[in-house]
Amino acid sequence: MITANVWVDGEPCSVVPSGDRGLAYGDGVFETVKVVSGQMTLDDYHWNRLQDSCHRLGIDTDIVFLQQTVSRFLAERASGILKMIVTRGSGGRGYSPKGCRSRCILSWHDLPEYPAAYWQDGITLYACATELGLQPSLAGIKHLNRLEQVVARSEWDDSRYAEGLLKDLNGNLIEGTMTNLFLVTSEGLSTPDLKMSGVAGVMRQWILDNMPQYGIKTQVCDIVPDALHQVSEVFVCNSVNGVWPVVAYADMRWAPGPVTRRVQSAVSGMLNV
Amino acid sequence: MITANVWVDGEPCSVVPSGDRGLAYGDGVFETVKVVSGQMTLDDYHWNRLQDSCHRLGIDTDIVFLQQTVSRFLAERASGILKMIVTRGSGGRGYSPKGCRSRCILSWHDLPEYPAAYWQDGITLYACATELGLQPSLAGIKHLNRLEQVVARSEWDDSRYAEGLLKDLNGNLIEGTMTNLFLVTSEGLSTPDLKMSGVAGVMRQWILDNMPQYGIKTQVCDIVPDALHQVSEVFVCNSVNGVWPVVAYADMRWAPGPVTRRVQSAVSGMLNV
Repeated sequence: MITANVWVDGEPCSVVPSGDRGLAYGDGVFETVKVVSGQMTLDDYHWNRLQDSCHRLGIDTDIVFLQQTVSRFLAERASGILKMIVTRGSGGRGYSPKGCRSRCILSWHDLPEYPAAYWQDGITLYACATELGLQPSLAGIKHLNRLEQVVARSEWDDSRYAEGLLKDLNGNLIEGTMTNLFLVTSEGLSTPDLKMSGVAGVMRQWILDNMPQYGIKTQVCDIVPDALHQVSEVFVCNSVNGVWPVVAYADMRWAPGPVTRRVQSAVSGMLNV
Repeated sequence: MITANVWVDGEPCSVVPSGDRGLAYGDGVFETVKVVSGQMTLDDYHWNRLQDSCHRLGIDTDIVFLQQTVSRFLAERASGILKMIVTRGSGGRGYSPKGCRSRCILSWHDLPEYPAAYWQDGITLYACATELGLQPSLAGIKHLNRLEQVVARSEWDDSRYAEGLLKDLNGNLIEGTMTNLFLVTSEGLSTPDLKMSGVAGVMRQWILDNMPQYGIKTQVCDIVPDALHQVSEVFVCNSVNGVWPVVAYADMRWAPGPVTRRVQSAVSGMLNV
């Protein structure tokens, strides 16, 4: 039996009603999860963020049903990517979300294939001209309104750049199009505050929560581009690819350093790969 | 024969592939068109905005095919609402839009039913706490990233408020959740500048283009809430409902005045209703 790669509300199905509010308004949230041997990695982090995102947007979702559905969905699978979308469902009148029932869409994808050099030798960041907007009501949430990322990612088509770095309208560094940013200073790790824009990645959160026990302090703060001139190492991270050292951005250059390697090592242990 | 109320890419179909980027990222645009006796109203305005929106987002769409499809879709219909969604389609890798082929979704809806008093006696605006974010790259476009409107519209559930008024993060008045805003001053009409946020409605544009020939000057500018204390009339508009006088917002009160009535009259003539 071939297991269907898309399920909608717990049943194999590869289409969504045209009236779904995820399509109409981007009215929903998502998680992209690395699955190893049929097991979600960072599962507590993904479930917590999904619940928090739904709560912030007032999307009523049955997390127990969703978890049971995901267990069934992953039952016969090995390693790959699970994408979970929870939309507010169909209905409501105009923008009003009243009376909607949420819908969940699970899909299965191959692990992305990136060169091993991204982890070993590091990557070059493209300097995106697109600036992230300022919207504290939605900042941090992994919602379906992702046009900024699409527009930013369409800025370059040169494989020398594995990722692009985004500032916000205030000129602060925020994140990559699909990763969060960390700087290594003499104090430890710094990552941008995401109260005005950006996506609060679960790998970012895992690093913030866990690196102190490895003796590496962490802080969340506003970071201006000039700060990059003073740091010894830079890396980006997400829950699928782990940690990529950054070796170049604009006119700046770094080498993958010892702190980045310690974080990579911890992440590899946790991702069990 | 019953004409299907949803078409996808020119064929009757009420579902969309789960991998559509409209669902994944809100990666698309839409138009909501009032149809009278099978004819689009404000058709030039809707087509121009759709093309402009697609151009700004780099969505490649075949406007001739789309227009022909809409003609077929409307052939057997009377009066109602045509919703046109153009997404970037399926495909691309992650956020990158490379290699996508756009998809169009047409749907047919009943005209909304609002009390006649909204046009005759005016409406009360809810003062939304949600502030629109600042994002000049996307401002003005009627794209599918509409979580701000959803969140704002969910703030009230009291039928005394026909609409809610939104400020942006800078404190400027911008628009209603589904309408644009006009103030009547001694100079003529003023409507908020939408360079940082908001949706540039086609009815707003029609009013800006056409009221001067009725002897009413128009201007687009930043408008702070205090400005409302100095204006003689206020109204909101959109392409489906035309013009609703505003009679109350926060502690302020107005009566439907002569300028609003002249705009209503001009709009009624144009909408042919």
